[in-house]
Amino acid sequence: MIDGAPLFIGKPVSMKNMLSRTVAALLGAAAAMALAAPASGTDPLPSWNAGVSKARIVAFVQAVSEAGGKDYVAPADRIAVFDNDGTLWSEQPMYFQLAFALDRVKAMAPSHPEWRTKQPFKAALEGDMKTLAAAGEHGLLELVAASHAGLTTDEFAAHVKDWLATARHPRFQRPYAELTFAPMVELLAYLRANGFQTWIVSGGGIEFMRVFGEQAYGIPPQQMVGSSLELKYELRDGKPVLVQQPKVAFIDDKAGKPVGIQKAIGKRPIAAFGNSDGDFEMLEWTTGAPGARLGVIVHHDDAAREYAYDRKSPFGRLARGLDEAAARGWVVVSMKDDWRAMHAPPR
Amino acid sequence: MIDGAPLFIGKPVSMKNMLSRTVAALLGAAAAMALAAPASGTDPLPSWNAGVSKARIVAFVQAVSEAGGKDYVAPADRIAVFDNDGTLWSEQPMYFQLAFALDRVKAMAPSHPEWRTKQPFKAALEGDMKTLAAAGEHGLLELVAASHAGLTTDEFAAHVKDWLATARHPRFQRPYAELTFAPMVELLAYLRANGFQTWIVSGGGIEFMRVFGEQAYGIPPQQMVGSSLELKYELRDGKPVLVQQPKVAFIDDKAGKPVGIQKAIGKRPIAAFGNSDGDFEMLEWTTGAPGARLGVIVHHDDAAREYAYDRKSPFGRLARGLDEAAARGWVVVSMKDDWRAMHAPPR
Repeated sequence: MIDGAPLFIGKPVSMKNMLSRTVAALLGAAAAMALAAPASGTDPLPSWNAGVSKARIVAFVQAVSEAGGKDYVAPADRIAVFDNDGTLWSEQPMYFQLAFALDRVKAMAPSHPEWRTKQPFKAALEGDMKTLAAAGEHGLLELVAASHAGLTTDEFAAHVKDWLATARHPRFQRPYAELTFAPMVELLAYLRANGFQTWIVSGGGIEFMRVFGEQAYGIPPQQMVGSSLELKYELRDGKPVLVQQPKVAFIDDKAGKPVGIQKAIGKRPIAAFGNSDGDFEMLEWTTGAPGARLGVIVHHDDAAREYAYDRKSPFGRLARGLDEAAARGWVVVSMKDDWRAMHAPPR
Repeated sequence: MIDGAPLFIGKPVSMKNMLSRTVAALLGAAAAMALAAPASGTDPLPSWNAGVSKARIVAFVQAVSEAGGKDYVAPADRIAVFDNDGTLWSEQPMYFQLAFALDRVKAMAPSHPEWRTKQPFKAALEGDMKTLAAAGEHGLLELVAASHAGLTTDEFAAHVKDWLATARHPRFQRPYAELTFAPMVELLAYLRANGFQTWIVSGGGIEFMRVFGEQAYGIPPQQMVGSSLELKYELRDGKPVLVQQPKVAFIDDKAGKPVGIQKAIGKRPIAAFGNSDGDFEMLEWTTGAPGARLGVIVHHDDAAREYAYDRKSPFGRLARGLDEAAARGWVVVSMKDDWRAMHAPPR
């Protein structure tokens, strides 16, 4: 619906089918807005402006929580999955974990003189983002492997913790872990208050997220799914350790997300929240089953308070999701219009 | 300490060190037995006979739960991990999942005439356990892959469910899922009542265990770690499915267990329960850190009520664990002496 792209791609959707879905969605939203009117005067999502997005989210939560209702879901099956980068916190001007990896490469450079001439390390050391971007996923993985491997899980967590305490985001001049989205943190708490189990399902590294996820989102380490390096169990000085290997074990992105969900959770979620085409299959898997389902795409359209990007961004590219959201009944959240607040207030 | 095997193998343990650990363990047990005396008359583990094993388990749970005590552990970190085969249910005369795979191979045989002459399928079809055993882990994985792959996760779960409803254990003539150990099911509930999160960490297949784990143990699908085949996300008739591939993704055994624990839980457990040398590294990882820790080995020494086996069994071999348990402070549970009950009563 942007840039003159075709309205629907992939599986063809008939006009009649599309219309009936749209009408149903609108009727649902109208009913939901009536429902969402704060009868008792308490608003469960004060950081969200009134509108279709908020109304549909609240209507879904109420529908699956209403004992005896036709859409009721037992608490044990109220699984909600959230992408992290771009969905729960910012991801520009680059994924925060990439910023961490670049800083690690710089810190490690004195003992790696060969990096001064070897790509993608040379570009990383020189801050040459154009060459880095051109190195693609393979180049980025090489940086991550070089900067993350050989460390025990405890050592790695300590490095991440130090970095989060000292590094500052170039635009906002705040610690990265403070750049979470207040409306999403509020939504996580709202879901949990309604019996949901909230999970992160991210292309980012699982061990990276575990360092800050509990404090930032209230999500414990065992409710995270992410990309990972191979781990090796060994004894160092007689003490058992787990050492990160320079080999990718799993990439939790695109079609890998439903796989990661099944491996870790073993249940199909009923609600999924993402912001890029890396989340497409996760939303498809979540909403492609009978019963009440919620798929939500957070659209970055707020250049003033955060960033505006979608189809052309190297990080968090969103095209197919925008094209198909309406036909699939997914909610597209406008950060500009739907969110009263943006980042969490400074601590 | 059995069959004249050396007392300690692996890292040498000095006699003085061994003695001091043993004395500490015994003193601890004596104190624990005093503590475990039911002051209020209620016994949290009625299926366990009074003795050192029970006393040490109860003392550990009380120590980590006592707010303000020196060994206190916050509930969020009270992670307890349990092997499944041989620890929570029986594993003789063969792993139950292997019995399932053999039955699947028999059911699939009409459309696989080549299996009549090809090993290990020929042996499986003829019930030739000797040849099967000789085929080793590789042969067993071939059977599992052939009988499990190509199915969606939903189809596979339906097959397991059917099998559990109809198949009977050859000796006990009961459904396999009824052959859980009553004292261990009781222990799981006791731990949860004391704020623990209970996890299964098994060499068995994760999707197999998920079918019965919640009903049998009260452990939900998302608290299981196990071996797995690769999964592939695809659309069938326009519906998203996850299809099991004929390729092993992860073997959750031996040194793989601490790796599986880290990947899924991201926290180091404080209590681990196993029964074979496949659990050795899990116990080592769990107990090899500061603070109160509990390692427990269930020893199958009850031929009358169940089975008696350890060093020489093809399934659930236990040698190093027996040799090193005392020096490492691990509790060795005698099923014959420590358990008042064996299998769960018929439903």
